[in-house]
Amino acid sequence: MRGVSVVGVGMIPFGKYTEKTLADLGWPAVKAAIADAGIEPRRIEAAYCGTALGGMMAGQRILGRIGLTGIPVANIENACSSSSTALRQGVMAIRSGEYDVVLVIGVEKLTKFGGGTLPLEEEDWEVSQGLVMPALYAMRARRYMHEFGLTSAQLAKVSVKNRSHGALNPDAQMRTPVSSEEVLASRLIADPFTLLQCCPTGDGAAAIILCAASIAKEFRSEAIRIRASDLTSGKYVSGFRDMTVPEITVRGAREAYEEAGLGPEDVDVAEVHDAFTIAELLYYEAFGFCAHGDAGAFLESGATSLGGSIVVNPSGGLLAKGHPIGATGAAQAVEIVRQLRGEAGARQVEGARVGLTHATGGGISGFDHGACSIHIFSR
Amino acid sequence: MRGVSVVGVGMIPFGKYTEKTLADLGWPAVKAAIADAGIEPRRIEAAYCGTALGGMMAGQRILGRIGLTGIPVANIENACSSSSTALRQGVMAIRSGEYDVVLVIGVEKLTKFGGGTLPLEEEDWEVSQGLVMPALYAMRARRYMHEFGLTSAQLAKVSVKNRSHGALNPDAQMRTPVSSEEVLASRLIADPFTLLQCCPTGDGAAAIILCAASIAKEFRSEAIRIRASDLTSGKYVSGFRDMTVPEITVRGAREAYEEAGLGPEDVDVAEVHDAFTIAELLYYEAFGFCAHGDAGAFLESGATSLGGSIVVNPSGGLLAKGHPIGATGAAQAVEIVRQLRGEAGARQVEGARVGLTHATGGGISGFDHGACSIHIFSR
Repeated sequence: MRGVSVVGVGMIPFGKYTEKTLADLGWPAVKAAIADAGIEPRRIEAAYCGTALGGMMAGQRILGRIGLTGIPVANIENACSSSSTALRQGVMAIRSGEYDVVLVIGVEKLTKFGGGTLPLEEEDWEVSQGLVMPALYAMRARRYMHEFGLTSAQLAKVSVKNRSHGALNPDAQMRTPVSSEEVLASRLIADPFTLLQCCPTGDGAAAIILCAASIAKEFRSEAIRIRASDLTSGKYVSGFRDMTVPEITVRGAREAYEEAGLGPEDVDVAEVHDAFTIAELLYYEAFGFCAHGDAGAFLESGATSLGGSIVVNPSGGLLAKGHPIGATGAAQAVEIVRQLRGEAGARQVEGARVGLTHATGGGISGFDHGACSIHIFSR
Repeated sequence: MRGVSVVGVGMIPFGKYTEKTLADLGWPAVKAAIADAGIEPRRIEAAYCGTALGGMMAGQRILGRIGLTGIPVANIENACSSSSTALRQGVMAIRSGEYDVVLVIGVEKLTKFGGGTLPLEEEDWEVSQGLVMPALYAMRARRYMHEFGLTSAQLAKVSVKNRSHGALNPDAQMRTPVSSEEVLASRLIADPFTLLQCCPTGDGAAAIILCAASIAKEFRSEAIRIRASDLTSGKYVSGFRDMTVPEITVRGAREAYEEAGLGPEDVDVAEVHDAFTIAELLYYEAFGFCAHGDAGAFLESGATSLGGSIVVNPSGGLLAKGHPIGATGAAQAVEIVRQLRGEAGARQVEGARVGLTHATGGGISGFDHGACSIHIFSR
């Protein structure tokens, strides 16, 4: 199959833009990616726009604003994996040989729903029983604490780490560091989660320009290569038997490492789906960064903080950068590309050569309805 | 690029299923396609689910019902072209070499909105000015009548033809023929359209199983080949200067014919996007079935009726089969595959060898936001 490179990235700072439309959010991200690639817009042959709740024709509305019309546009929905799935479609479109240059967009405006947890599908019986996202993750956290002795103080440290990273990221929604005490003293949402252990509601957009690796040098000397592009679905957790194992991420990680010919020991930097504090810890284990049950200690060792051996969520992650769900996967890719280029400023992971992104969601109880998309990049 | 074949198709009769969920609608169509292909479900490697208004994770919800979980699923939105765009993504996925067998689903439940015209995006200024779909098509119809002398009686004959075809289709929502007098005497919706010149609101689902052409014989001896798979976006009509030319369909038709190495003279049967009577006439011209301005006379000649030289909408089209928007493109493909296999019963187009499908929409005024997906099939 043909190689695929990233030659342009752009995003808007995540935040609350109550007065803006979805198209208002999206077009500046696209323009930034075009400028970053130094590409003539007419070289872009197709676009994939990921949005979960943005309504019909999100991509066309955004591209209409900047006169980038006429190219094929497909809008992709996969809940929290919407724009990482759009990225996968873009990769596949280039691999198919049909296009050489493709634009990927992620966009969402959650403030239109007035805040709180996501509007989920009422036909899912889990939702009708009250199993919204904070409740689901809280059960996993409680089970993990029971099984492995994880403490509330350790959980809180995920937020402390990611808020400290986010404070270094001009694109983050939450740009102030917080202490463990502040995290634990914030309002209880779903035991054991306090407010500062839940990702914020917000709006955002991010964009990526992909091309066939064979022509990447036309646009940038330091194009980043996509080494793996994986999408899985199915059980979000391994059923009721073991809620501490995120089954689709475990499977996706194995597939992605195999595709890339790499392993966890090769990864320098990762953006993983820390929608709630427990999530990041589960994903350390799913990606093989540490053994099952060791995530709390691994976090406390500093391995995943800036300066550590495998820096996780240098952007601040969902907890600090924010989580406008359809925009998240694309924004993770923006961060990893900046890290691999050495353009991440105060939050730069020194010498980063291999990075991965991971966006997962959709599964309500997650018995069957989860989606997970993982990409591995290298310079 | 690798060849792609259709080895299984299935759908549920379009209609109003107010008590059913989206997943209730979708899974029987998928099971029918699997049975039609005679395929082991585990051979299916990935799924693309087109829905415009079905909510998050439509594909996963449907596949969860029949235990078809674990495979990568991407949900595709492109307004009325949602499942035709999903079909295009499935084709591209096989062409990329990543998968050999892919499932495509189209599904929609419009009755949840309570009837009437589609819920459109309020941020589109055209919508805020009242330019909903019936109004938009009505303006095109009036312009065409002014330019070319088309009469209301001729317009009504599109409905008469398609309702007569639909009466022969067990999967059609409207299964009674209507006379020109009944069409013209029905309630006025947007001058010149009466109610029976507008497609009905309804629910539905359709599914298609694609595979690499090289392995199609494993499943069916008479696999149908996809000769072209095209997606365009941009101007829905050629601006205000000429509302009688559907620009993206003209462009898409040219691209699709070129890809297939075929022309309008090769097409035996077509399912085109007759959301309103005028639409079918505009598309005769866009596809080159007749010259610009001649569509009314071409219709009256009987050329596009069963028994004619190029039968258009033998299924009954959107006007009779119904138009659950996300399901439409997939259902068009189901009809063409049945026609090319000779399985269309009382509405069979004798000796059909080449067929095309065409689903377009999304453009509100259509200045920039339209999408159009065209596929050409042959036996």
